[in-house]
Amino acid sequence: MSDFQGDKNKVRQILDSVKAAGRDSLTAPEGKLVCDAYGISVPKESVVTSAAQASTVAASMGFPVVMKIVSPDILHKTEAGGVIVGVKSAADASAAYDTIVANAKVYKADATILGVQVQQMIKGGQEVIIGAVTDNSFGKLVAFGLGGVLVEVLKDITFRLAPATNEDALSMLDGIQAAEMLKGVRGGDPVNRAALSSLIVRVSQLVSDFPEISEMDLNPVFASKEGAIAADVRIVVDFAQKAPRYRPPEAEVAVAMNRIMQPKAVAVIGASTETGKIGNSVMKNLINGGYKGQIYPIHPKDAEILGYKAYKSVKDVPGEIDTAVFAIPAKFVAGALKECGEKKIAGAILIPSGFGETGNIEGQEELQRIGREYNIRLMGPNIYGFYYTPSNLCATFCTAYDYKGTTALSSQSGGIGMAIIGYSRSAKMGVSAIVGLGNKSDIDEDDLLIFFENDPNTTVIAQHCEDLKDGRAFAEVAKRVSKKKPVIMLKAGRTAAGAAAASSHTGALAGNDKIYEDVLRQSGVIRARSLRQLLDFARGVPLLPTPKGENIVIITGAGGSGVLLSDACVDNGLKLLKPMPDDLDAAFRKFIPPFGAAGNPVDITGGEPPITYVNTVKLGLEDDRIHALILGYWHTIVTPPMVFARNMVEIVEEMKKKGKVKPVVASLAGDVEVEEAAQYLYEHGIPAYAYSTEIPVEILGAKYQWARGAGLL
Amino acid sequence: MSDFQGDKNKVRQILDSVKAAGRDSLTAPEGKLVCDAYGISVPKESVVTSAAQASTVAASMGFPVVMKIVSPDILHKTEAGGVIVGVKSAADASAAYDTIVANAKVYKADATILGVQVQQMIKGGQEVIIGAVTDNSFGKLVAFGLGGVLVEVLKDITFRLAPATNEDALSMLDGIQAAEMLKGVRGGDPVNRAALSSLIVRVSQLVSDFPEISEMDLNPVFASKEGAIAADVRIVVDFAQKAPRYRPPEAEVAVAMNRIMQPKAVAVIGASTETGKIGNSVMKNLINGGYKGQIYPIHPKDAEILGYKAYKSVKDVPGEIDTAVFAIPAKFVAGALKECGEKKIAGAILIPSGFGETGNIEGQEELQRIGREYNIRLMGPNIYGFYYTPSNLCATFCTAYDYKGTTALSSQSGGIGMAIIGYSRSAKMGVSAIVGLGNKSDIDEDDLLIFFENDPNTTVIAQHCEDLKDGRAFAEVAKRVSKKKPVIMLKAGRTAAGAAAASSHTGALAGNDKIYEDVLRQSGVIRARSLRQLLDFARGVPLLPTPKGENIVIITGAGGSGVLLSDACVDNGLKLLKPMPDDLDAAFRKFIPPFGAAGNPVDITGGEPPITYVNTVKLGLEDDRIHALILGYWHTIVTPPMVFARNMVEIVEEMKKKGKVKPVVASLAGDVEVEEAAQYLYEHGIPAYAYSTEIPVEILGAKYQWARGAGLL
Repeated sequence: MSDFQGDKNKVRQILDSVKAAGRDSLTAPEGKLVCDAYGISVPKESVVTSAAQASTVAASMGFPVVMKIVSPDILHKTEAGGVIVGVKSAADASAAYDTIVANAKVYKADATILGVQVQQMIKGGQEVIIGAVTDNSFGKLVAFGLGGVLVEVLKDITFRLAPATNEDALSMLDGIQAAEMLKGVRGGDPVNRAALSSLIVRVSQLVSDFPEISEMDLNPVFASKEGAIAADVRIVVDFAQKAPRYRPPEAEVAVAMNRIMQPKAVAVIGASTETGKIGNSVMKNLINGGYKGQIYPIHPKDAEILGYKAYKSVKDVPGEIDTAVFAIPAKFVAGALKECGEKKIAGAILIPSGFGETGNIEGQEELQRIGREYNIRLMGPNIYGFYYTPSNLCATFCTAYDYKGTTALSSQSGGIGMAIIGYSRSAKMGVSAIVGLGNKSDIDEDDLLIFFENDPNTTVIAQHCEDLKDGRAFAEVAKRVSKKKPVIMLKAGRTAAGAAAASSHTGALAGNDKIYEDVLRQSGVIRARSLRQLLDFARGVPLLPTPKGENIVIITGAGGSGVLLSDACVDNGLKLLKPMPDDLDAAFRKFIPPFGAAGNPVDITGGEPPITYVNTVKLGLEDDRIHALILGYWHTIVTPPMVFARNMVEIVEEMKKKGKVKPVVASLAGDVEVEEAAQYLYEHGIPAYAYSTEIPVEILGAKYQWARGAGLL
Repeated sequence: MSDFQGDKNKVRQILDSVKAAGRDSLTAPEGKLVCDAYGISVPKESVVTSAAQASTVAASMGFPVVMKIVSPDILHKTEAGGVIVGVKSAADASAAYDTIVANAKVYKADATILGVQVQQMIKGGQEVIIGAVTDNSFGKLVAFGLGGVLVEVLKDITFRLAPATNEDALSMLDGIQAAEMLKGVRGGDPVNRAALSSLIVRVSQLVSDFPEISEMDLNPVFASKEGAIAADVRIVVDFAQKAPRYRPPEAEVAVAMNRIMQPKAVAVIGASTETGKIGNSVMKNLINGGYKGQIYPIHPKDAEILGYKAYKSVKDVPGEIDTAVFAIPAKFVAGALKECGEKKIAGAILIPSGFGETGNIEGQEELQRIGREYNIRLMGPNIYGFYYTPSNLCATFCTAYDYKGTTALSSQSGGIGMAIIGYSRSAKMGVSAIVGLGNKSDIDEDDLLIFFENDPNTTVIAQHCEDLKDGRAFAEVAKRVSKKKPVIMLKAGRTAAGAAAASSHTGALAGNDKIYEDVLRQSGVIRARSLRQLLDFARGVPLLPTPKGENIVIITGAGGSGVLLSDACVDNGLKLLKPMPDDLDAAFRKFIPPFGAAGNPVDITGGEPPITYVNTVKLGLEDDRIHALILGYWHTIVTPPMVFARNMVEIVEEMKKKGKVKPVVASLAGDVEVEEAAQYLYEHGIPAYAYSTEIPVEILGAKYQWARGAGLL
């Protein structure tokens, strides 16, 4: 929240009158009054009724001024000779008054003339746009971009959740492509950053205080060394407020999610003895997965299922139940859900499909109503269920996971969930949880964040989503959680049409994906660019310790890999330690052949024995001026892949014992044996890839991005 | 080449006088004369010597004009009151003449006054920059960008090889980020594209005709509906011409490369019986690889090596030798190379290191001299050698390849070469050749292109390089070859400092990587963005038939994959068939459940049996309005991965027999069994990836990019 307070009463009055008049936008004078109430600088202006007054008022504003007829009977002021721009002196102002009034009378003899408006003329400096829009998911957003047609063409605009802090606002000035323009190019003056950021903060506060302001444009704002003044204001209102998505208090969310994800007792509604049935798969997964809590099969007839006593209804179960997994057809779900509610079950895992995704919106809304009535949280419907490995819990019909770890994954889509499971097993990626969110009738990404935030078994959270039902809630939670643990998101559906029907300038520039991009960054979320990258990040990021600084050194046996690894560093915003300090350079040189290259990359050359890798990597880990290492291995007979891998793991472990803990990633070039070596390195904490120079660096880049966002660098 | 002819004699005279004066740039009047000679529009101007003449001349130009004192004694014209802008009438021009002359006399009483320059004032329209630079590798390049400081900040500028054709020039107008600005935004007029492109062509011809023009700026050029006029001209010259890199005629290259790559006889200089020696590995690879030509081991003492008669020198070998593989220490290479020259061997494969890469420039230059003297081509030094699989030829010390195919790869770096070999074996990527280019003392990428162009065993050429020693030669050849076969390049070293020391505006904007980007595109080369992408393209692109149109349909079992596949289409410049024609939509709907989504993606939903995939894919292959298919498979019990894979291969084969040949790629989401299915699909001509939605679409995108560049779409 910003600590800025505007004059709310004044704005309320204006908006009330606009509402009473049934209008959907403010007039220019109303817009100016609103700006005044929030300390948003606009040009000085005044209406005068005599030539003498014109000259005094104009002089007090400072020249030049622009003068315009004020008459309800004259709509086309310029046509009527009712506008004079560039009035440069008191005498000219006096003369201009007379001319304008005379012209007006000629134009329309019986026009009611209320006076002449005298307005400060603003120009010079850099034209920028400050605006605000209302997004269905994120709510109020403030926008900033350069003014002018070129910027419109390039769509170079940036967004933040409103209200924006001063820090947010300052980050916006650096957040556009053309940021350099604000710093004073070609000898020009830099703009007054404080004045601009203050304007952004005020606009963001205004739209936050008044939800009915749906869109707003200050366009152009003239930003100069001295300050920032909005030359034109446009405010669009929408008094039809939508009901916000239901959201329980966070403490309640935490309690419920804890019960759901780590249940002491699970009911399986629709448990079955019949192989191939979902209710059978769920039962077997619970049992064979090694879940130690109570398992209660629910079945209308059977007395026992797979060795467990069965009940006709959850209400017949003697003990408390935390989680109910649904494996029954859609039409029976509502009834069973009510019983779960009566039984005070914390959460329903709604595997069944046949709701929103097939057009059965009504059926889904019924479940939502029941959920709220009984205070039972809903996961799904239309999901595969979930895994929580620390409890050996497989509340799903899918095959069991193989590798425990500390990454918690979720997917909106079942297909992507299957890809997560497959990749996890194939790459031996350890997971703490895999959760299907499906139609997200209730539980969504931010509920999961709240649970994983305090889950000691989770160190990284990786989520696939197609939309955020409540982007604002997500952003608020993510901002906090991402300070503690990396939050990675693959946001699909980047090409969805944005605010196509927007009526403001800012609105027209607000692409849906650009908003996600900016808000996710504002929230400290690392955005994965592809499914494979989500999976690579989920696997690699938790293995890396947090770097203590920005200085990275590449140590490579292949010069060619060194070049590509350097490229990847630039692509991923990583900084090579350059120039290498003389003593460090000399120290590296001691270990490498005379024709090798020190500097950075350190090119140890291709024909070197294992000890050269060991010596140089040890030096890289020892020296406190180096904060992370990128290794480029080249397969030779002298240093076979597994010898390299074992040596690297050994030296990293040895140095770790001495307190030298640094992120290390590796790229392996060579014949197929490098795949085994990469797997070995990965299993021992060094993200390593065969035939790729870019992926290991991307993973290191993600860790750095997180550490910076969390304020650890 | 452009078909424009400038007045070369006139420019030659001016440049000769500049050279004689020892200057390194042209004066403004000289620059204008050069422009006149090449029909480059500049403002009309004339020097007058009386007020009356001023008024007549100004009137003939059209108002407004700007007038300036012409005096060798007055450097600071404005300070001297010697400049008047915005002169609007004949009378004003006459008065301005008198004022300027009077001011000049006041400023400096004894100044020699040669007259007053009257110049047409140009303004309005869109400011653009047209320029030219000289690149070490590519030679003359013409540049185009918008004018103004913002463009400088954004570095939104595009390059083409000079001379540029009119088509090249027009592509530049569309090749900048802000291209829309030229089309008339906010109701503005579009610029005159013909006038602008003609200006670009003329500048490009000028710098091509006169190599001594090292840099040139027309900045700004005012482009309007009517035409384009350069308001300011700057020409920088460099009379110290560098000797161009030696380059034999193409016909000679083709003959030599054919002998080298498909030799009838190979000599191994430094052949050895001793395991672990390079000369031993090369011999074994030649023998065990199954090479059917003559093998001549060369050894100072041994009479026989590995069952082959050995010779003391290549000169002792009775028959002709095409290719000599060197496996001897650096210091012996020059001597042996001379003997190869005397023996009229076509090419020397210089495996030995210890030349340019270790600082032994002189040693490498000696080899180059010998090579030219004897007309023997050099591959390397500092390489692993090469493979040419159609001849079963492994002229390398590395392990043998496993899979024959039609992709020809090359790498500048040995490490990257090893990664190619490893990936090829692991992924079963068929190759026709793998070539190490190392120090590129002679043979480089364009020599390989010339060979592969007519090699019937090669359908795709994929190259890794860090620099192009002769970018111009490469571009010329690539432009031709890429029309026949896809040429893919991973250009490493993207962050190399560009023309940092440039003295022109255009030069300062010319980032090295931006030039590569533009010239590679101009040459029809597909640029791979990462090592993995180079390998994925090398593997996948040759499998895909050339699409007959732009309409792509996604058929998916997982809605989530469909969204990500759509995103990937946008990222890769692919166009989905949208809206789906009604009859086609209805036809798809017949095969899918009522809650499935037709449209595009066609979402068949997750629970469907194999026949649903078969029916929809068959329809997609049959209908001629659809040109390519992207499949999204979701692993279920109903349609297991291998069932899906076999069905897809079957239907694609069946339709192929009916003449329905279309590119098909697949993304597989599921448990580990999808990996086997992906491999099966790949081996049967359908590039398929497990756990990735983006890679298969990138491969399809590369094929489309090639087809468009080759004029096939």
